Amino acid sequence: MRFHTRKWVKPEDLNANGTLFGGRLLAWIDEEAALYSIIQLENSRVVTKYMSEINFMSSAKQGDIVEIGIAVEKFGKSSLTLKCEVRNKMTRETIIRVDNIIMVNLGEDGKSKPHGKTEIEFVKDRLA
Amino acid sequence: MRFHTRKWVKPEDLNANGTLFGGRLLAWIDEEAALYSIIQLENSRVVTKYMSEINFMSSAKQGDIVEIGIAVEKFGKSSLTLKCEVRNKMTRETIIRVDNIIMVNLGEDGKSKPHGKTEIEFVKDRLA
Amino acid sequence: MRFHTRKWVKPEDLNANGTLFGGRLLAWIDEEAALYSIIQLENSRVVTKYMSEINFMSSAKQGDIVEIGIAVEKFGKSSLTLKCEVRNKMTRETIIRVDNIIMVNLGEDGKSKPHGKTEIEFVKDRLA
Amino acid sequence: MRFHTRKWVKPEDLNANGTLFGGRLLAWIDEEAALYSIIQLENSRVVTKYMSEINFMSSAKQGDIVEIGIAVEKFGKSSLTLKCEVRNKMTRETIIRVDNIIMVNLGEDGKSKPHGKTEIEFVKDRLA
Amino acid sequence: MRFHTRKWVKPEDLNANGTLFGGRLLAWIDEEAALYSIIQLENSRVVTKYMSEINFMSSAKQGDIVEIGIAVEKFGKSSLTLKCEVRNKMTRETIIRVDNIIMVNLGEDGKSKPHGKTEIEFVKDRLA
Amino acid sequence: MRFHTRKWVKPEDLNANGTLFGGRLLAWIDEEAALYSIIQLENSRVVTKYMSEINFMSSAKQGDIVEIGIAVEKFGKSSLTLKCEVRNKMTRETIIRVDNIIMVNLGEDGKSKPHGKTEIEFVKDRLA
Repeated sequence: MRFHTRKWVKPEDLNANGTLFGGRLLAWIDEEAALYSIIQLENSRVVTKYMSEINFMSSAKQGDIVEIGIAVEKFGKSSLTLKCEVRNKMTRETIIRVDNIIMVNLGEDGKSKPHGKTEIEFVKDRLA
Repeated sequence: MRFHTRKWVKPEDLNANGTLFGGRLLAWIDEEAALYSIIQLENSRVVTKYMSEINFMSSAKQGDIVEIGIAVEKFGKSSLTLKCEVRNKMTRETIIRVDNIIMVNLGEDGKSKPHGKTEIEFVKDRLA
Repeated sequence: MRFHTRKWVKPEDLNANGTLFGGRLLAWIDEEAALYSIIQLENSRVVTKYMSEINFMSSAKQGDIVEIGIAVEKFGKSSLTLKCEVRNKMTRETIIRVDNIIMVNLGEDGKSKPHGKTEIEFVKDRLA
Repeated sequence: MRFHTRKWVKPEDLNANGTLFGGRLLAWIDEEAALYSIIQLENSRVVTKYMSEINFMSSAKQGDIVEIGIAVEKFGKSSLTLKCEVRNKMTRETIIRVDNIIMVNLGEDGKSKPHGKTEIEFVKDRLA
Repeated sequence: MRFHTRKWVKPEDLNANGTLFGGRLLAWIDEEAALYSIIQLENSRVVTKYMSEINFMSSAKQGDIVEIGIAVEKFGKSSLTLKCEVRNKMTRETIIRVDNIIMVNLGEDGKSKPHGKTEIEFVKDRLA
Repeated sequence: MRFHTRKWVKPEDLNANGTLFGGRLLAWIDEEAALYSIIQLENSRVVTKYMSEINFMSSAKQGDIVEIGIAVEKFGKSSLTLKCEVRNKMTRETIIRVDNIIMVNLGEDGKSKPHGKTEIEFVKDRLA
C-alpha cells in the first residue's frame, strides 16, 4: 500500500469532544479514493458505489498528522476496487481501515462504462 | 425510522463532477449518528466505532434536499447500534443506506462505560 | 411548530469567545427556511426577502445540540411567511426566535411568481 | 457610514440557485458587527443581542464584490447599537440593510458589564 | 496604504498550534489583492501572477482582529502591481508584508489583455 | 523532490472566475510545509517564517488533481528550509513553485529552539 496524502488535524477537523471528527475522516477517504481512481482510469467521471465495513480502530487529536493509503484490490470491467488504510504518520498506529471501496467509471451519459484498464499505471510512464 | 435533519445541496457540497460529494454525505451521516446517540445516552462523549457496508444507491444534485433518518437497532451495555438511511426529500428515492452504525459511550477517562439505557427516550418526557 | 434539523456545535461553529457564532446560527436559520419553502412550494427557486427582528435569547457552547423549528404563518400569493425558533435540544431552552421570515417564489425569469399553494402539504401525500 | 470589509462572492458562497446565499450574508454582517464592537469597546467579549428587521433588497452573483458598512447608532451603558448596510461595491446598489444591531459588552463572568465608552474612538488616537 | 477588510480570528482559522494558520492568512491576502484589482481594473477576470518574498513578522491568536492593507505600486500595460500589509488592528503590529503582488488582467479568451488604466480611481467618481 | 499530498479541485476551491483560487493553493502549500517539518523535526511547534517569491505558472480547473512536492534545501540550527512545487498530477505541468520556505522550530515558550536534526529521516527507521 502506498501512502500519499497527508492531513494535519486542525481545530476545524475536530468533533465536539476535541478529537478528530469521524465524518471528516470519511470525507478524506472518499476524496482520496476518488482521485486515485481518476488517475488510474484516466477519467474524471468516477463515483463511489460501495464501501465495505469500517472499523474506527483509534482516533487522532489536534496537531496529529495522518496519512491515507490506497491500494488496488481488483480491476473490474467498469469498476475499480480499492482498499484503504488511514494511520498516524508519526506512530504508524492504524486509525481506520476499509477493505473494499468500489468505484465506478462513468461515461458522458452518467452510466457505467468499461474503462479498459487491467493494471496499475504510473503517470510518468504514460508521459514518457 | 424518523427523518429529522435536512440538508440543501449547495455548490460547496459538490464533487468535481457536479454531483453531491460522497464524502460530504458520509460526514453528514456520522454527525447525525453522533448527535442522535448523545441525545439518547445523555452523554456528549460518544464516538463512532463501526459502520457496516455502505451502498451508494443514487446521488443528488445541486438544489436537491436530502433528509437523514436514524433508527435504533439495539442498545448494548456501553454501545448503541443505529441504522441510517438518507433519501431525497422530494422523491423519497434512497440515496444511501447503512444497516449498522455502532456508537460507543465513553467515560471521562476516554474508555467505554455502561450507559444504563435500554430503550428510546424522548426529551419531552425527561423534562416533564 | 415542527423541529427537524439538528446541529452539533463543533469547533468550526464557534466565535472567538468560544460560544456559538451568531452568524453561523443565522446561516442555519436561513438555510432551513429556504429548504422548508422549497418543499412546500415545490419550486427550488425561492429566496429570502425579509426577516423580522431577531432576539438572541441564549447561546450554545461546543458539544451542545440545537434543533431548528419552522412553522407557517401565512401563504401569500407568491410568498410564504414562516416563523422560526432554535432551541437547545437537551434543555429545550430557546436560543433564538424570528417571528416572520418572508420567502418569495420565483419564476425562471427570476421574478416573483404565484405559487398556487394555500396550505401545508406533506410529501408522503403528494407521492401517494 | 464607513465601508470597510469587502468580500468576493465565490462558488462556496452561493445557494443552490447560484446567487449569494442569504445565510452567508447574515454571517458576514454578524462578524463585522462583532469585530467593530470589539474595536470600539476594547473588549473581546462582546455578543450579538438583537437585530432589527432585515430587508433583502437585491442579491449578488458569483464574482461580485460586496462591501459591508457599519455605523454607530447609540452608545448604551453596557451595550452598543449599530446599523449596517451591505452594498455592491461596483454599482453601489444596496443588498441588505439592518437598522439596529445591539451588541452587549460582557465581563469575565459572562454577564453584561458597563463599557465606559460614549463615543467613537480611532485606534490611531489610542496609540498616539 | 488603505486598510479595508478586517478579519476576526476564529477557531476555524487556527493551525494545530492554536495560532493563526499561515495558509489562511495567505488566502486572505490573495483574495484582497484580487478584489482590489477587480475594482481598479473594472474587470472580473484578474489572476495572481507573482508574489515577492513574504516575511511572517508576528502571528495572531484567537479573538484578534487583523486588517489587510493594499496599495498600488505600479500600473503596467496589462498588469497591476500591488503591495500588501496585514497588521493587528488593536496594536498595529505588522503580521505579514508582501512588497510586490503582480495581478494580470485577462480577456475573455483567458489571455493577458491591456486594461487601459494608469491611476487609481474611486468608484464614487465613476458613478458620479 | 517527493510528491505526496494530492488534492482534487472541487467547487469550493474555485475563485469567482471558476479556476483554482490562488489563496487556496497557498494555504495547501503552507499546510504541507508545516506537516513536512513537523515530521522531520519531531516537534509539532513549527511555524512558517519566510517564503521566497512565488510564481503562478499555470492554473487548474474543477476536476483537476494537483500534487504537492516538498524537498529539503537546508537544515539550519533551529530552522528548516524547504522548497515546494505544485503540479498537475495528470499532465505534470508545474502550477506553482516556491524556492525557499523557512520553517522555525519552537520550544514550549514559543521561542526558536535548536532542533538537533541535520538530515532527512524516515519514520520507518525511527520506529525500527
